[in-house]
Amino acid sequence: MEKVPEEHRRKTFGWAAKDASGILSPFSFSRRNNGDEDITLKILFCGICHSDLHCIKNEWRNAVYPIVPGHEIVGVVTEVGRNVSKFKLGDRAGVGCMVGSCRSCGSCKQGFENYCPQMVLTYNSVDGDGTMTYGGYSDAVVVNQDFAVHFPESLPLDKGAPLLCAGITVYSPMKHFGLNEPGKHLGVVGLGGLGHVAVKFAKAFGMKVTVISSSPSKEKEAMERLGADAFLVSSSMDQILAATGTMDGIINTVSATHPLMPLLILLKTHGKMIMVGAPEKPLEVPAFSLILGGKTMAGSCIGGMEDTQEMLDFAGKHGITADVEVIRMDYVNTAMERLARNDVRYRFVIDVANTLTPP
Amino acid sequence: MEKVPEEHRRKTFGWAAKDASGILSPFSFSRRNNGDEDITLKILFCGICHSDLHCIKNEWRNAVYPIVPGHEIVGVVTEVGRNVSKFKLGDRAGVGCMVGSCRSCGSCKQGFENYCPQMVLTYNSVDGDGTMTYGGYSDAVVVNQDFAVHFPESLPLDKGAPLLCAGITVYSPMKHFGLNEPGKHLGVVGLGGLGHVAVKFAKAFGMKVTVISSSPSKEKEAMERLGADAFLVSSSMDQILAATGTMDGIINTVSATHPLMPLLILLKTHGKMIMVGAPEKPLEVPAFSLILGGKTMAGSCIGGMEDTQEMLDFAGKHGITADVEVIRMDYVNTAMERLARNDVRYRFVIDVANTLTPP
Repeated sequence: MEKVPEEHRRKTFGWAAKDASGILSPFSFSRRNNGDEDITLKILFCGICHSDLHCIKNEWRNAVYPIVPGHEIVGVVTEVGRNVSKFKLGDRAGVGCMVGSCRSCGSCKQGFENYCPQMVLTYNSVDGDGTMTYGGYSDAVVVNQDFAVHFPESLPLDKGAPLLCAGITVYSPMKHFGLNEPGKHLGVVGLGGLGHVAVKFAKAFGMKVTVISSSPSKEKEAMERLGADAFLVSSSMDQILAATGTMDGIINTVSATHPLMPLLILLKTHGKMIMVGAPEKPLEVPAFSLILGGKTMAGSCIGGMEDTQEMLDFAGKHGITADVEVIRMDYVNTAMERLARNDVRYRFVIDVANTLTPP
Repeated sequence: MEKVPEEHRRKTFGWAAKDASGILSPFSFSRRNNGDEDITLKILFCGICHSDLHCIKNEWRNAVYPIVPGHEIVGVVTEVGRNVSKFKLGDRAGVGCMVGSCRSCGSCKQGFENYCPQMVLTYNSVDGDGTMTYGGYSDAVVVNQDFAVHFPESLPLDKGAPLLCAGITVYSPMKHFGLNEPGKHLGVVGLGGLGHVAVKFAKAFGMKVTVISSSPSKEKEAMERLGADAFLVSSSMDQILAATGTMDGIINTVSATHPLMPLLILLKTHGKMIMVGAPEKPLEVPAFSLILGGKTMAGSCIGGMEDTQEMLDFAGKHGITADVEVIRMDYVNTAMERLARNDVRYRFVIDVANTLTPP
């Protein structure tokens, strides 16, 4: 039995992957006791992000088992530290991809904790005290108040949970690259967990939205269900050429290798393509397709805490949620198999409170 | 003998490439007569840009022979149209890479005539009246006043000429991407015609400058002659890693295929690498190296007319010139051979007025 330090005696229960098979099974562990700056959340729902799958299967070669995944966590506050002013007992709160950062570097000071070199991820990461972090496929989480956000009353907990990762991942670059202005034209490449939320935000910003997908079958979905204004099949050079130079920006959510030149063609002069999906192989970018129109290709990785709160408030106000399939905890391994073959529209969310059975 | 329209009876003399051998030889041709909005320049000096070489050898597959190259033109005004208010007889003036644009598109209205879809290049381009444009390896040029710039009295004509292409090509992105602020750290990749001028501008802006080159032999040159603060050999992973995350931006002038990941590593969070050199093969960019630090890779192509004037004025004020080798017109074919093997430090400039012998 491993020795648990005094301050880490909060018994917790969840599901963990024990090895690179990625198979999840019940797991008892300890979290730190609620500190002065901490809040404890009873977890109600937790979204399943594709990163969870990459991580438990050690596809990023950084897994430290056992791993309790989950970074789209919503719940209710059950404990507050004595210095906590931001939350009170009973509040709805969310925890996203990170639970700590240095607070003093340039990125932290500018509200980009997501780029802090000492950023602590919500799971499979080493916390400030040297212990490993465990995520939201569990009954409770203890987190510094600054890394929790208020979850608007108007936002359903289950459908809102994925916004904590998928939502902020697209909202942050849209905001910081000026791709949130009414009348501008946004392309959204890939209609999955991230893409479908990007369409909803862009429409709420008052933008024209074109979905670009390799699957012609997604047209109806994109236009009718999500309210996109147009749809392009990425392999159709005719369709691409007809839309040459029409887009102010593109949010590219695709993490499979795909040709970028046809996408860069779609951009206006000074247009920007933001990569939020990360194909394993290097991207191939003809220099001329950037130079001739003064175009930009940038990467973006989740978003800062203040932006996350702003995004949730905006979503609450505009009724933006993810399209989800709510599942039981014991369905999680099947859900992972389905996720691996993109068989979900668009996000699985675990009903933790009602289906995680304690030992 | 081709039929020359009335308005194109201004006899001109220069050197032209007649075919893809790229060999230049004396050539008599006509330009349009000076129109109401035009000025005519007696050409004094013309820089030799690497584009000239690409173009005359038809390496961009768009050559229309005969080609009179040259888009780094300085001279003196010898004729002004009746609606010309910007110049008077005897003024020093310059003509850069373009001589026309639509004036009404979004790019033109924002001062980016360089991205106008109807932009007319100074040579090998179809002008508004359907005739081909001819460049500055010639005794005179007729140009709309809006596409000529004032050439500061304090700027030497020969050493200043290359600023009209090399200068604006680096100045424009430095300005528009915020890479012109005192105290910021700029990397300059490649120490050629563009790179050496970028170093000088960056130092004049009050920046810290690191030159990054594949040739260790350029260190002395970069530091002592050009005043760079530091030098990195791009193939030395030790040197690259030691400078990880230290640069606000990079101006990448290299047009040979080269690995980009080591350069992206050098950027701080939200750092920007601007491509002004265009390798023939697609760039290979690992998505993670953009995403993890929220980094940007952008292209930039010369610059607008207002920026060109601003750049020249800044250069005049700060004594920024190119390092040049002034040559005679009849040395041009040898100069092209030397340019092809990068045997010039850093720009050839033709002494047109004194060495172009009329037929």
